[in-house]
Amino acid sequence: MSTPPLGLEQLSALDEHLTEQERLIRASVRRFVRSEYLPQAAELFETERFPLELVPELARLGVLGASIPGYECAGMNSVEYGLVLQELEYGDSALRSFVSVQGSLAMYAIYAHGSEEQRARFLPAMARGEVIGCFGLTEPDSGSDPGSMRTYARRSGSDWVLNGTKMWITNAPIAQVAVVWAKVADDDASGAAPDRGASTIRGFLVERGTRGFETPRTRGKMSLRASETGELVLDECRIPAANLLPSKPGLGAPLACLNQARFGIAWGALGAAKACYESAVDYVRERRQFDGPLARKQLVQERLVTMASGIVQGEIMALHYARAKDRHGRLRPEQVSLCKRTNVAVALDAARQSRALLGANGILLDYPPVRHLLNLESVFTYEGTHEIHTLVLGKALTGESAF
Amino acid sequence: MSTPPLGLEQLSALDEHLTEQERLIRASVRRFVRSEYLPQAAELFETERFPLELVPELARLGVLGASIPGYECAGMNSVEYGLVLQELEYGDSALRSFVSVQGSLAMYAIYAHGSEEQRARFLPAMARGEVIGCFGLTEPDSGSDPGSMRTYARRSGSDWVLNGTKMWITNAPIAQVAVVWAKVADDDASGAAPDRGASTIRGFLVERGTRGFETPRTRGKMSLRASETGELVLDECRIPAANLLPSKPGLGAPLACLNQARFGIAWGALGAAKACYESAVDYVRERRQFDGPLARKQLVQERLVTMASGIVQGEIMALHYARAKDRHGRLRPEQVSLCKRTNVAVALDAARQSRALLGANGILLDYPPVRHLLNLESVFTYEGTHEIHTLVLGKALTGESAF
Amino acid sequence: MSTPPLGLEQLSALDEHLTEQERLIRASVRRFVRSEYLPQAAELFETERFPLELVPELARLGVLGASIPGYECAGMNSVEYGLVLQELEYGDSALRSFVSVQGSLAMYAIYAHGSEEQRARFLPAMARGEVIGCFGLTEPDSGSDPGSMRTYARRSGSDWVLNGTKMWITNAPIAQVAVVWAKVADDDASGAAPDRGASTIRGFLVERGTRGFETPRTRGKMSLRASETGELVLDECRIPAANLLPSKPGLGAPLACLNQARFGIAWGALGAAKACYESAVDYVRERRQFDGPLARKQLVQERLVTMASGIVQGEIMALHYARAKDRHGRLRPEQVSLCKRTNVAVALDAARQSRALLGANGILLDYPPVRHLLNLESVFTYEGTHEIHTLVLGKALTGESAF
Amino acid sequence: MSTPPLGLEQLSALDEHLTEQERLIRASVRRFVRSEYLPQAAELFETERFPLELVPELARLGVLGASIPGYECAGMNSVEYGLVLQELEYGDSALRSFVSVQGSLAMYAIYAHGSEEQRARFLPAMARGEVIGCFGLTEPDSGSDPGSMRTYARRSGSDWVLNGTKMWITNAPIAQVAVVWAKVADDDASGAAPDRGASTIRGFLVERGTRGFETPRTRGKMSLRASETGELVLDECRIPAANLLPSKPGLGAPLACLNQARFGIAWGALGAAKACYESAVDYVRERRQFDGPLARKQLVQERLVTMASGIVQGEIMALHYARAKDRHGRLRPEQVSLCKRTNVAVALDAARQSRALLGANGILLDYPPVRHLLNLESVFTYEGTHEIHTLVLGKALTGESAF
Repeated sequence: MSTPPLGLEQLSALDEHLTEQERLIRASVRRFVRSEYLPQAAELFETERFPLELVPELARLGVLGASIPGYECAGMNSVEYGLVLQELEYGDSALRSFVSVQGSLAMYAIYAHGSEEQRARFLPAMARGEVIGCFGLTEPDSGSDPGSMRTYARRSGSDWVLNGTKMWITNAPIAQVAVVWAKVADDDASGAAPDRGASTIRGFLVERGTRGFETPRTRGKMSLRASETGELVLDECRIPAANLLPSKPGLGAPLACLNQARFGIAWGALGAAKACYESAVDYVRERRQFDGPLARKQLVQERLVTMASGIVQGEIMALHYARAKDRHGRLRPEQVSLCKRTNVAVALDAARQSRALLGANGILLDYPPVRHLLNLESVFTYEGTHEIHTLVLGKALTGESAF
Repeated sequence: MSTPPLGLEQLSALDEHLTEQERLIRASVRRFVRSEYLPQAAELFETERFPLELVPELARLGVLGASIPGYECAGMNSVEYGLVLQELEYGDSALRSFVSVQGSLAMYAIYAHGSEEQRARFLPAMARGEVIGCFGLTEPDSGSDPGSMRTYARRSGSDWVLNGTKMWITNAPIAQVAVVWAKVADDDASGAAPDRGASTIRGFLVERGTRGFETPRTRGKMSLRASETGELVLDECRIPAANLLPSKPGLGAPLACLNQARFGIAWGALGAAKACYESAVDYVRERRQFDGPLARKQLVQERLVTMASGIVQGEIMALHYARAKDRHGRLRPEQVSLCKRTNVAVALDAARQSRALLGANGILLDYPPVRHLLNLESVFTYEGTHEIHTLVLGKALTGESAF
Repeated sequence: MSTPPLGLEQLSALDEHLTEQERLIRASVRRFVRSEYLPQAAELFETERFPLELVPELARLGVLGASIPGYECAGMNSVEYGLVLQELEYGDSALRSFVSVQGSLAMYAIYAHGSEEQRARFLPAMARGEVIGCFGLTEPDSGSDPGSMRTYARRSGSDWVLNGTKMWITNAPIAQVAVVWAKVADDDASGAAPDRGASTIRGFLVERGTRGFETPRTRGKMSLRASETGELVLDECRIPAANLLPSKPGLGAPLACLNQARFGIAWGALGAAKACYESAVDYVRERRQFDGPLARKQLVQERLVTMASGIVQGEIMALHYARAKDRHGRLRPEQVSLCKRTNVAVALDAARQSRALLGANGILLDYPPVRHLLNLESVFTYEGTHEIHTLVLGKALTGESAF
Repeated sequence: MSTPPLGLEQLSALDEHLTEQERLIRASVRRFVRSEYLPQAAELFETERFPLELVPELARLGVLGASIPGYECAGMNSVEYGLVLQELEYGDSALRSFVSVQGSLAMYAIYAHGSEEQRARFLPAMARGEVIGCFGLTEPDSGSDPGSMRTYARRSGSDWVLNGTKMWITNAPIAQVAVVWAKVADDDASGAAPDRGASTIRGFLVERGTRGFETPRTRGKMSLRASETGELVLDECRIPAANLLPSKPGLGAPLACLNQARFGIAWGALGAAKACYESAVDYVRERRQFDGPLARKQLVQERLVTMASGIVQGEIMALHYARAKDRHGRLRPEQVSLCKRTNVAVALDAARQSRALLGANGILLDYPPVRHLLNLESVFTYEGTHEIHTLVLGKALTGESAF
């Protein structure tokens, strides 16, 4: 009476659109995550620990700075990179976040906005996992509106002196180098904190050990507990001129980095969703109630169908835009917003539905849903909240700004 | 302050995946719908009239039986056909339904399940629009469960005699030929109405003018009012043996036709959704309230973003599966269920949101949303209700039947 | 195996909170609606006709101006009046709208803002149904934001001369008297159309037959088709001073009338919801599919439970606030917004779910859901759209205006 | 420009329906929760500790077995008790759960189903908090379907011998007495585990220290972390005849206890919802973005309005049914299902929306939402999952069982 369940990959018919190499890369990361990360995922979450010991293997798999060409990086295309991130987040959003921050934010910032000397000095070591990076844009009072940041830099001789606090910085406590964005007075010389109008934004590489630079850990998180999250506290922190990123001043540079990372999140979040979905299918097929498996109940099936529809649609969309990205070299920000907003919402909902389908067992870390449910609350909020992406899209679609 | 709005086709980046010919076919149908159908769409709906006078032009455009190869049919691929249906339903679901029933149900049934003589006799004339067909499966007490049908056929010499009533049959009052599905006793000889177990299902071509065959029109519909919908009443209706479809007995044959038609609906419904979306964007950009355009309000933008996301995702999905269909010659029924269920729900929701965004004007036939809103209620229900597709998918995904 | 279904009134346990008289009034209106209105409800909707012939019986039942004390009005309390409106809208929103406009808008405006002479002249005749009234506030370009109205009045001798157009006015084509709100220049003398800042708003009684006053009917409505809806066109329309309402100038007067009417809508809409719910329960208990009644399917039950929960909660809430209204003589506008917004959304959703549960039959006017579904689109939009009430509540709850 | 926000109690107008004593009881519990529990709520959650040191004060406040008359219990009416539970869950669902299990499950079971000796022996000590109780019905493989339990008792002389495992038992690790439900063979004599058909269900009082009785703690919970949750492991556990509850055999007795507790949850969950709502209102009024407070954004207000509407409706409903319960001495199970199902769903949604409104700060235990969000996942599932109550209501409303 019961038949083998149809898997998501059979429903989505996605694999036939992937190259042999794309499938191989996915398989190798999948193997790693399932054998190395998943067995300890619950414990890492519970004990709030990122497994630094896995970084060399991540490097060996080529996932650090994977989309960067050259500098010992893997130079993956967007689909390969997306599949990698999906497999990583099947493990845990913290694992994927580590890789996103290292590659799409810190390394990409240096690659896209740094000098050749900066690239050569940092990128190969970061690709090998010997140097960990972080990316400091968000501040305690400046989340969705980075233009209101208060961190500022002033010239002092040929050096720069930074003051300010960055918050919610993934990898901060374990990073050797932080890409820090700060305001700079237009004439570069005034020592006063600039106001919003009279200044522009520049990027700086701040290295661990610099006097006046601390990275305190954030306590009491109920999400991304396997991430090392902290602040970047800059108190008269003096940086040599060589550590200024030579990119065009303004918000464009950091936002371009975020755009890179966001698209990866659209892939990654579906990995978490799949872990939740598979966990739920297994559970309801096993669990019997009222003389039959839960899987035979219409209300249960409706939840699973909703999840599966969202995941399959999300994957098809992610693949579609990834191919477009590789073809054109870029995506519109609105396309990235569409993907991030939709797929993370799908994933968060899948985690919640899956948690509920597991009944009382759904509150235990022994099963993946509650962990993903909590992680995805962060993913929903970071890299542009759901609402911010609504307004980005709304502005484009109507031609009117409603921020 | 306000900029030109981003169109859905820019957001979806779909066109770059289309061939020149696919775009040309779409353009020609689009031109026809906007110049010939839309100017009278409200009136046709209000007066419950299908514009038979447009059938020759539909034939000339190659949209009747468009996916069938040979027999004077256009032999379009799945994407071309999908784009055609989308443009037609941008006009009205009744227009698209006419074409779906003619081509994907009536003609496809004859093509896939008929004899060479039947094909040669009917298909070219139907492609030219000279013969209109309909498809009789549903009965008054047998909607989602066609196996419970009561129409039956018994042998009488070399003829067949049919009794029963089919209902909700699009094109019935205007069709020259009806494909009618009926139960036949296993030994083909008993004259009694067969029960469910002891019989199988066969298809018959019933021609207008046959004695005992009536097609009364259904009155009081508030949906698909521009469709000619009626019953097929068979009262000792005698059919020559040559009008029996020689296909394998059973439900497989009619369900295969429905599977064809359903995939077309997944494309078509998005056409209705786009008409609603565009109507809403135009309205809120124009309409001013509290000293600004409605388009500048967050609540308005959120609705539009939800609509646009659903439409764009739906199109990307439809294209993905259409390419798979052409590659493999078929789709899994669950893939068709996923597309029909998702895209029709998106369209229905878009029509409702759009109706609301137009405020009081939204209840007028002068604007498209309320018409589409009503039409889509039928589309939601026919060709497998939303819930039936939920259970089709649920059965596949869990391996357990919950019907 | 199947047992008699539990009715909503058993689930809600509401009746034990009603007085004998409240129940009697409800029963008499219920009898009237079911015997006089329902048998012709579908036809009235289809033919766009309001049954003026029923007005005398409505008057006899005491439902015209029912909440007004004196002037031959019934002087009902808020619960009695609410129950009346619920029963009327069980019939059709157009029937309830007629009564709301006559009583809560036109008569209430004269009662609360008129002179003693105006009251004595109009109210008894209106309570007897001999004079029908309407209420002109909304304009073509001024819906949710009445302060932007363009209709204006200027003094001319002791008379007033009105110019402007009101739109979406229920009862307009059949009313003998219209309460019209217009802008008046602060010095009452300038003949120029006043701008928004330099003017205030006054009410006028405009009687049918006055030169320059026309009430063209609105065509092509797909909602409230049994309502007589039209425009009020004022073209140099001269009104005697006696027809100026002597109330305090400003938007306060018309908004107070709307507040009255809105609370009645919160009751009424649940009547439509109940008609839809009962229709669906009857249908799914009767209709068999896959060897059992539809009522035995979990997906069906979930829809019914959602409907029933919303209706029962809505009734309990409406009763709670009606008692508070009678105790204090008023409600906060936010409380009215809460009731209108919530209960109309419940009703609209119930109509949609119910339409879908009836399958193909749900698109026929033979069954109530599609009629209510369409009517409730207007109810959702009029008397403050859903979104406007969101913002009214949001402003109160946060202390910040987001209009 | 900004005004003081309207509080939920002003919107709900509930207090005028409360007696002086009801308000006083609420005030005293509120004081306790805010001064004694809330300051340590985050830490108790993080460290998975129930504050046993607060039990004497809970006893002094009269909240243990509060609804029981006599036996040193407070004999509160249903409204008083409901308000108490709401205030407790404003603190934490674990605090309310402790009180629900002690009073509505363990004490109520002894009160309603125990002998006079059992009552006298246990109830006063439990009311004083000197004896803590728990309630053992759920088993690892028997959640929503208690009739499938496997724990069984056999007679052995005048004693009973119990074998089996209960799971998800709140208070298990700290209870001195457990009310345990077990199957008993119909002839009371066979030593074999009875099958479902041939047995009935009886209640037993199992005291800590009895040989063969263990209460291991459940590890790795991410919800109700301040609850002491565990198993009851019965391995040839011998109970004297005096500890058999003399109630009528069958599931009726334990289900009656659950019905009591469930109604309390409908009140309690709104306490958690209010804590989340207030936290969100405070946050968005404070937090500035794009040059204004978040509270001024339409999307933010819509979320708050949804929360507030749900909470206010839930409270009005809870009060309505509590009064009915006191008047009639009981509620229908369907009425309890309606209240539990609706209010817990409102609360869970409020916690999620509130978490999101707090942005990144929402993932910190420093703010209440994420803690409530997690707790409410259990509350959604226990005492009848959301779906079980859907089916309880569905069965009543349609007369057909769909379990």
